[in-house]
Formats: sequence, structure tokens, C-alpha cells
Amino acid sequence: MKKIHIIGLGLLGGSFALALKKVKPEITFTGYDSNIDNQNDAKVLGIVGEIKENPDADTDVIILAVPANAISEILIKTLDSIGPDTLVIDFGSTKEALCNAVADHPKREQYLAGHPIAGTEYSGPKAAKEDLLDKKVFIICEMDKTNIHLKGMAYEILEALNMKLRFMNPDEHDKHLAFVSHLSHISSFMLGKTVLDKMEDEKNIFDMAGSGFASTVRLAKSSPAMWAPIMEENKKNILEAMSLYISNLSKFRDKIIADDYEGLYQEMLKINKIGDILNLEK
Amino acid sequence: MKKIHIIGLGLLGGSFALALKKVKPEITFTGYDSNIDNQNDAKVLGIVGEIKENPDADTDVIILAVPANAISEILIKTLDSIGPDTLVIDFGSTKEALCNAVADHPKREQYLAGHPIAGTEYSGPKAAKEDLLDKKVFIICEMDKTNIHLKGMAYEILEALNMKLRFMNPDEHDKHLAFVSHLSHISSFMLGKTVLDKMEDEKNIFDMAGSGFASTVRLAKSSPAMWAPIMEENKKNILEAMSLYISNLSKFRDKIIADDYEGLYQEMLKINKIGDILNLEK
Repeated sequence: MKKIHIIGLGLLGGSFALALKKVKPEITFTGYDSNIDNQNDAKVLGIVGEIKENPDADTDVIILAVPANAISEILIKTLDSIGPDTLVIDFGSTKEALCNAVADHPKREQYLAGHPIAGTEYSGPKAAKEDLLDKKVFIICEMDKTNIHLKGMAYEILEALNMKLRFMNPDEHDKHLAFVSHLSHISSFMLGKTVLDKMEDEKNIFDMAGSGFASTVRLAKSSPAMWAPIMEENKKNILEAMSLYISNLSKFRDKIIADDYEGLYQEMLKINKIGDILNLEK
Repeated sequence: MKKIHIIGLGLLGGSFALALKKVKPEITFTGYDSNIDNQNDAKVLGIVGEIKENPDADTDVIILAVPANAISEILIKTLDSIGPDTLVIDFGSTKEALCNAVADHPKREQYLAGHPIAGTEYSGPKAAKEDLLDKKVFIICEMDKTNIHLKGMAYEILEALNMKLRFMNPDEHDKHLAFVSHLSHISSFMLGKTVLDKMEDEKNIFDMAGSGFASTVRLAKSSPAMWAPIMEENKKNILEAMSLYISNLSKFRDKIIADDYEGLYQEMLKINKIGDILNLEK
């Protein structure tokens, strides 16, 4: 593996390059981003050596790390133009629509549908961090549809990055992600909105916000340019997750209205279990 | 100041004692907790030197760090029994009902209504940390109602702990706290519930949960014994905060249903401002 091209030089694409070039210094990185500032930052930060819209013909792997609603068009265009020895991997947060879009593409086997479970509330090449992907989960969908020889390059890269592989159907992926990632971003944004709407004095918010509020509202700093497209791509599952969330909130509110504090206590006690689950490996 | 008695030897009461005895080693700490395990832990951890239900007559300051719905009864009983040189401070998360409960007490001026904005999702004396209160905000309500000489001891303690004082009416306090603290605990608990209800395979939750989910759901590990009483004490304001939160979620969902991704983008962009507010002093 000699050459990797990254389309989308933001937090994920940038962190990927920074981490991989450290363990595989022999690889040349080229890349492209539709935003000129990102292009310049990516060069200055050493994320890629050269900015070019079209990857060289001898590029081994092309990474798509653009917003979720932009991937399918770029993926199809990229598959159309590459030679037989190039693998395309995407890092999108939604997988079902994307896998459907290329299901019948003649070069389907040159594509690997991936999703690294990693991110921060910040975005752009300046937010990229060498250790962002380290020991994180990388989900692969429809693994069997990718050519076995090309797939070897993906495994080599993911192993070099210390990532843990998980395999899943695209629909299962999107459904789970709606609950365990997309919903928490929405709950956080709406918490931020509710507080901003109500507390006009920002100094009061700052003074009274303990570490608990800061933690719960952290994702409300996330990039709208990344998240609006995810809501578009995973609409069905996100709507289901939101309905259940709103219904749970309403039932909890009803218990408060009814002064059912023993019921509230018991319900919170059951939910405490989430702590054990998140500490599974500790 | 020679003697402090702490009723409630959990996270807050314990952290208070650990921090203060470091900077004021001349003070003797006694205390009480209705839970026998907490009593033993507090002694072993050096939080108090002696467990006793009733403070000595020459106790300078009595701290009430018990669940919100237990404070008012203990506060009245304590005021009834103390001599004229003792100050009582409470650390409760709600203030209006409490201030009303003692408004006409003959020893009202021996009470200071306080609330340290500090905590973690853990509870009990073992969770106590020497630095929990360091540089945190301490809200004082109805400051004018406390005797000026006794108040001097509170200032001495809070300064020794590096705490930043803020002054507020009890109703204003409870309203703001409902939004900036109580609501985020509820949103976090309900997020945990929604994910637990839906994702039966706990390994999947663990694998797919990024740091964003962990951050948003962290407060769902909080103690029900602390939080059910807060919902009881601050019912009115919490219901208002929840209604606005649910309404914001519903409107956001409507935008997704209507495929109004530009509207979602613009709304999230506005909410991003919460990040600037939380970073005010950085």
C-alpha cells in the first residue's frame, strides 16, 4: 500500500491520516475538501501532502469522510472512475441508504461500507487528533460484498490504527445508531435550546451550570453541517427514537404530576444500570 | 471556629469536610448519617472524627447535606435546639420551600440557605473528593436574613474552600436550577431508558456507544435517593422545564418529518452558542 486519497479533510479524515502516517510512514497521502480553508489547514497541519480533486490512478485506497448526505453521489462518481485495484471506504454515520444506492453498481465489490465510532463535538482539520480512532470500534456493513483481496488493505489499515472491528447489517446499524448516537445529539441540542430560550442572562447559565449540565449539553456544540444530513439520511429510525424518547419523558412527567416519587425512584434505579453497561470493560 | 457538625455524610458533606480540614486543621469535625454504612465509611475515611446524632452545644457551624425533601424537618429541629452562637447552613439543591418553611422561625437569622454547584454522578462518603468544591460556585439565598456575625463564619469557610459566591432569591434559584441542572438529569435518565428499552443486546450498546453517548447519559448513573426528592421539592419549575423541553423536541421532530433540513441546520447553528457560554471564562 503506497497511496491513500482522502475526500473530506475534517475531524475524521484528518485524524485518520495523522494516525496512519505515524505507523505507516511509507504511505503518501493526497486529499480534497470542497472548503478552501480546510484544504489549506490540511496541508499546513501535514494531514495530506497534496491537494487534488481527482486521485492518482495508482491510488490504493480512497476514503470518503464527507457529510452523510454527500457520500452517495461522491461514492458512485468515484466507483465509476477508478481502476480495478482501488478500494473505496466511507466513514459515514448512516449506512442503509448508501448500501442501497450502490447495490447494483458494477464495481460494488470495490467498496467497503464503514463507520468509525469516534468523534468529538468539534469539526474541521484543526480538530483532528492523532489518537481519535485509537482502540475505537469500526463497524463494517455488508462485509461479504467487498472483494476479498481489496478488503485485505482495509484490515491492514484498521489493524495499524488499533481499531476493533464489528460486523452488522446496514439496517441494524442505522437503527442502533439512531438510539445510541443520533438521539443523544438531538436530546443535547434541545436541552441547549430550552436553557437558552428560558435563561436570558447568559452569566446565570454560566454560573449555575455544574459539570453535569456541561456534560449533557456538550454535543450541542456539534457541527450542524454534519448533523442535519444525518437526520436526513436516517430519518425513519431517528423519528422512531425521538417518539420513544418523548413518550418516556411524558410518562416521567406524569409521575411527577401525580406525586409518584416512589415510582420515579424505582424507575431511576432501573436506569442506573446503564452505568454498568458503559463500564463493561473496566 | 473550632467545631463543625455535618448531618449527611455523603458526596457533598464528605467532600466539604475533606477539603476544609486540609486548610483548617484546627477544626474538629463531628457528624451523623442515618445510614450505618455511611457512618462507618465516614469514620474510616477521616471525614469526621466522631459520629453523634446531636451536635455538641459549643458547635460553631452545623451543615445539612441530606436529600432535599429531608432538609426542612431537620433544619427546624436543629434550629429549635441550638444555642445563640451556632450557625446552620444547608447544601440543598432547592431553596424556595425550605426558606418558606423557616421564614417565621424565631431563630431564622441563625440559618444560611446555601447551594454549592458541585457534584458527580456518584454518591456516598466513598465518592467524596477533597477537590469537589474547589473554585465552584456557592449560591446564597436570602443573605440578608442571616445574622451578620454568624454569617462571618460562613464567609470564612467558603473563602477557605476557594468557592465563588453568588446571591439570588430562592424562587429565582429554583427556577434556574430546574433548567440548568434538574432538566439535564431527567433528559439523561430518559435517554438511558430509551436506549435500554430498545436495545436488548447490551454488548451492542457498549460497542456502539461513542464518547458522545457516554457524556450525554452520564447523569443517568445519579442516585435516585437524591433525585426523586429534588423532583418533589422543585415540582412546579421542573414541570415547566420539561414541558418546554418536550415541546422543543416535538417541533424539532416536526422539522425532520417535513424534511426541513435547512431549518434544522439553522436551529442547531443558533444552539451552538451554548458552547461559547460554557467557555465564558476560558
